[in-house]
Amino acid sequence: MKNVVALMTDFGLKDNFVGLLKAVMTRINPGIKTIDITHDIARHNIKEAAFLLAHSFSYFPKGTIFLAVVDPGVGSLRRAIAIQTMHYYFIGPDNGILSIAVRKAGIKKIVALENKRYFLPHVSSTFHGRDIFAPVAAHISCGVGIMKLGRSLKAIETLKLSSVQVKGGTLEAHIVYVDTFGNLVTDVTEKQIIAFCKGKKFVALLNGKKISKISLSYSQGPEQEPFFIQGSFATLEVALKNRSAAHYFSLKNYGTITIRCRD
Amino acid sequence: MKNVVALMTDFGLKDNFVGLLKAVMTRINPGIKTIDITHDIARHNIKEAAFLLAHSFSYFPKGTIFLAVVDPGVGSLRRAIAIQTMHYYFIGPDNGILSIAVRKAGIKKIVALENKRYFLPHVSSTFHGRDIFAPVAAHISCGVGIMKLGRSLKAIETLKLSSVQVKGGTLEAHIVYVDTFGNLVTDVTEKQIIAFCKGKKFVALLNGKKISKISLSYSQGPEQEPFFIQGSFATLEVALKNRSAAHYFSLKNYGTITIRCRD
Amino acid sequence: MKNVVALMTDFGLKDNFVGLLKAVMTRINPGIKTIDITHDIARHNIKEAAFLLAHSFSYFPKGTIFLAVVDPGVGSLRRAIAIQTMHYYFIGPDNGILSIAVRKAGIKKIVALENKRYFLPHVSSTFHGRDIFAPVAAHISCGVGIMKLGRSLKAIETLKLSSVQVKGGTLEAHIVYVDTFGNLVTDVTEKQIIAFCKGKKFVALLNGKKISKISLSYSQGPEQEPFFIQGSFATLEVALKNRSAAHYFSLKNYGTITIRCRD
Repeated sequence: MKNVVALMTDFGLKDNFVGLLKAVMTRINPGIKTIDITHDIARHNIKEAAFLLAHSFSYFPKGTIFLAVVDPGVGSLRRAIAIQTMHYYFIGPDNGILSIAVRKAGIKKIVALENKRYFLPHVSSTFHGRDIFAPVAAHISCGVGIMKLGRSLKAIETLKLSSVQVKGGTLEAHIVYVDTFGNLVTDVTEKQIIAFCKGKKFVALLNGKKISKISLSYSQGPEQEPFFIQGSFATLEVALKNRSAAHYFSLKNYGTITIRCRD
Repeated sequence: MKNVVALMTDFGLKDNFVGLLKAVMTRINPGIKTIDITHDIARHNIKEAAFLLAHSFSYFPKGTIFLAVVDPGVGSLRRAIAIQTMHYYFIGPDNGILSIAVRKAGIKKIVALENKRYFLPHVSSTFHGRDIFAPVAAHISCGVGIMKLGRSLKAIETLKLSSVQVKGGTLEAHIVYVDTFGNLVTDVTEKQIIAFCKGKKFVALLNGKKISKISLSYSQGPEQEPFFIQGSFATLEVALKNRSAAHYFSLKNYGTITIRCRD
Repeated sequence: MKNVVALMTDFGLKDNFVGLLKAVMTRINPGIKTIDITHDIARHNIKEAAFLLAHSFSYFPKGTIFLAVVDPGVGSLRRAIAIQTMHYYFIGPDNGILSIAVRKAGIKKIVALENKRYFLPHVSSTFHGRDIFAPVAAHISCGVGIMKLGRSLKAIETLKLSSVQVKGGTLEAHIVYVDTFGNLVTDVTEKQIIAFCKGKKFVALLNGKKISKISLSYSQGPEQEPFFIQGSFATLEVALKNRSAAHYFSLKNYGTITIRCRD
């Protein structure tokens, strides 16, 4: 079954853009089912989209086609690509947005989207989501093999991502996503902190403020004090009870967390 | 037919949370259809969700499964429940969110969600929507009887709600919901006001300001002056023409309306 | 196939209003598919809705039923109508919201919605979307001919729209839509500017600021300077690279662009 298309964009829901993606796909494949992952990616924030996609795809049915469009380079020479992995298909601009997800999913084939037979008849220079990506997704859902879409590629663009590392006696982690409640998703796991501090207590610093506890649930967390929690992503999150941690830490952009072990 | 799942949460649409609920359900039941009631319940506002659910369910097809997740106690000892009523199924945390709707719908069976066979293999402590409620809803839609989900319960948590009452010569009503246009949904009906004032005129006070008219439609309402109107919920709403009544009355939280009869 | 209903309203997504439209329709036709065009039309802005609908419908499958509800006159004497065109159906209040789209789509039949058999049993005076328009759309999707819905009409309400015109040596164009990124959609095409200036350079004025370039894509546009671009609508848009043009031009309401030719 390949009739599920999952959508992720930075289009928002004010305009008719998302509706047109679905219209174009339904016109090509009346049996298509669409699921919105989100359309509220911060505008042009390819990293945020790549992170969310990588933490979403494995919950979807096998055969799902992911359409991810955060595309500041639309109309320029950046390539449009489709990738077949072990169980899924991924479609989007070749700007790194698909790169984290497909590495986890196991790349099988990559193609450049070049065969205009699978585009809308008229391709604008500003809305490839409607004119190229949506029709290509719908054609894949109808059974078109991705090798028909264009020439085979050997590699795709990737993103420069920071990762957890030891720096002069400290463990350096990073905020990689801020959710709608202001919880700060990090790239560090509880296991990594325990291994680094060999079971001793730790203290973490973010924007000059301390975090020193890991809680099993929001309701068990300390009052009026930030804590780490094993959230719904695979890594620790920084949270406060009934408050936005993003607001508490005055975080405007994603930040760095420095973790030290206590004696 | 039991393939419709209606969703109501306080998750918002910025993150991938709602998308994951649908992904998990579609993976279990590819024929499932989801309808969003809203995902913009004020965070942790169980009363608001309970009110909207109670005023929504009866418009849905018989057999619809309602998944309502506003869950400040996630990860604590609060129970997760499923309730079968005359024509519907309701799933959510046992914190009162389902209580008004199921009382109207006619409770037939209540169970605690305990059979892990119907959960995702790994259950997080922060996202039971994805890990417990969504898969349970999908399994019910596939025909799993609710008695298979866990032990039978005799009662559920309820909410303390104020109701219309006579107090020292006045009729006391309440604002129970504020819609996106700033209309103030009350808990009082036109019939109740007429019966209380025995056909005489009335004057209502809210935050020190007066309301003295009931209009049949927005367009027939007075200019520059608040009025009651029989809205799309079963009770009267306070409205202003082309303005937000919430703003006019400086309402920050839900308030009390005092109704007196004129001589 | 007539099982696709496309929705456009000014209801927003905070309340249960959009969910109830879908509930009512699914109850009447369990096989119905809904596609949201948008629910974020500025409240009561019939022109904005009419513009977006006219630029959306042709991307949908033949047989699609469009339900467009921006309805400040709900509950008054304004008519409710359904229109059959060459390939589509349009339903909404008779206030101009459908007028631009149906003119492009080719009107075949117009009817007033009067046959209460196709409404909900109880019709409120504030929510005809739920009580009249949604059930009518669902019945059409089930095969009910529009002549059964009420008496035939000869004409519908239209909107007073400005259009591009020559005024004393200048070409006057207008901002007709502002998208979520702040791009300003105009009513003028590149061809019209070229024809007016006979191939010479042009300079356009909007709120006292100049636009003098047309770019083929966002990425090829000039830095720090507004430009025209052939956007995803049929006409030119005013854009800035990585910024909101609406903010740059301090546009609060839709405005007028004056285009002069250079010597």
